[in-house]
Amino acid sequence: MIARVFITPKKGVLDPQGRAISSSLHALGFGEVEDVRMGKYLEIRLGSSSEGDPAMRVRAMCERLLANGVIEDFRFEIDQENPGRGA
Amino acid sequence: MIARVFITPKKGVLDPQGRAISSSLHALGFGEVEDVRMGKYLEIRLGSSSEGDPAMRVRAMCERLLANGVIEDFRFEIDQENPGRGA
Repeated sequence: MIARVFITPKKGVLDPQGRAISSSLHALGFGEVEDVRMGKYLEIRLGSSSEGDPAMRVRAMCERLLANGVIEDFRFEIDQENPGRGA
Repeated sequence: MIARVFITPKKGVLDPQGRAISSSLHALGFGEVEDVRMGKYLEIRLGSSSEGDPAMRVRAMCERLLANGVIEDFRFEIDQENPGRGA
């Protein structure tokens, strides 16, 4: 089982990495870029020995460690089958 | 239009951040965690003045700037409508 977690800066929180990437993309000729938000992406492989509901466990992981609730939002998907997707 | 880009370390590439997160999750009692891979997640808002096919443009952004092809894989989705999803 794979949990895919997406962590993004909350709306209104300054995102200097995103701003830097946006400037660099403009400099490379990608003028259509209006805004870039930079976040984190985690793939967590979970054993079948999970206690309790996997979605609740992953939510707890996000709240306790992975995301900073003051400045970051998170969402996640749980994939029962696919061990990972390529490019 | 929003492009969502996922950048992950290639298989076989050492991922020290993922290892550190995995250890911390174990220490917090999440023993079911078998492996963590840490990557990047970008939301890129694109104007409608795009030259050419947006998917080709986003692929070019990934290859030229966002991902390091030697050690990272990327994939992306293009969402015509939704300006962003919450937690």
